[in-house]
Amino acid sequence: MILNYDSNYFMQKAIDEAKLGLNKGEVPVGAVIVIDNKIIARAHNLTETLCDITAHAEILAITAASNFLGSKYLHDCTLYVTLEPCPMCLGALYWSQISKIVYSAKDKKSEFNGFQPKIHPKTTIEGGVLVNQTEIMLKEFFKSKRS
Amino acid sequence: MILNYDSNYFMQKAIDEAKLGLNKGEVPVGAVIVIDNKIIARAHNLTETLCDITAHAEILAITAASNFLGSKYLHDCTLYVTLEPCPMCLGALYWSQISKIVYSAKDKKSEFNGFQPKIHPKTTIEGGVLVNQTEIMLKEFFKSKRS
Repeated sequence: MILNYDSNYFMQKAIDEAKLGLNKGEVPVGAVIVIDNKIIARAHNLTETLCDITAHAEILAITAASNFLGSKYLHDCTLYVTLEPCPMCLGALYWSQISKIVYSAKDKKSEFNGFQPKIHPKTTIEGGVLVNQTEIMLKEFFKSKRS
Repeated sequence: MILNYDSNYFMQKAIDEAKLGLNKGEVPVGAVIVIDNKIIARAHNLTETLCDITAHAEILAITAASNFLGSKYLHDCTLYVTLEPCPMCLGALYWSQISKIVYSAKDKKSEFNGFQPKIHPKTTIEGGVLVNQTEIMLKEFFKSKRS
């Protein structure tokens, strides 16, 4: 089998992480960090499990990737994350100087709408990858919480 | 001896933390989180030691305070920090719904100058406490790094 290591492939891995979070009752957000087509960090939101608002998938993935690389900078790395990062995570990604951020669903209900984040000049960002899957997962999660 | 639990008292404790960081070669930033005049979390910047850009004093202090309280929200808590928080830390403080942020030195050289952070409606923020001590400590640290 020849695997096609494209954005869809890696976003699917991030979605797999989000599902692990969902099974724990977490807001389903997952992330992977990739270098040279190799996943070096996987994480999902653990804010409820750890009782810690800093435990977003992106923050946990950055820590894990830095530990793997032995570098606090994530040059040549790409983050795939199932939801548009919040200001905390964008601030962390700025410091990491990560090369690329790819997110899936836009955070439409965010209280940070209209917020203008600062992206590191070494970083590019794109959204909308596999958005149908992630939007459904998030919608169903919040619907189940309301009922 | 009657101790006066005012902003100067707790900022001095944050400065003591910053000095612990300085002794490890870290950018000297320290933080404490206080509830009912009791320090429930102490932390200093550990980005070099942990090789992790998320290891700012504020992030570590939030995690420690949440762990102490058994709550992901830091209602009725005050953060004292020796340097104006960066966007990552302000984002985390937003999620924590902390009641008050007191910082010492303004981050004059920040690449985030002009950045408009979003502060939680439950949070108040003030700066400039014991600024002479913290500005000198930071200036001397960066001067020693350049020489």
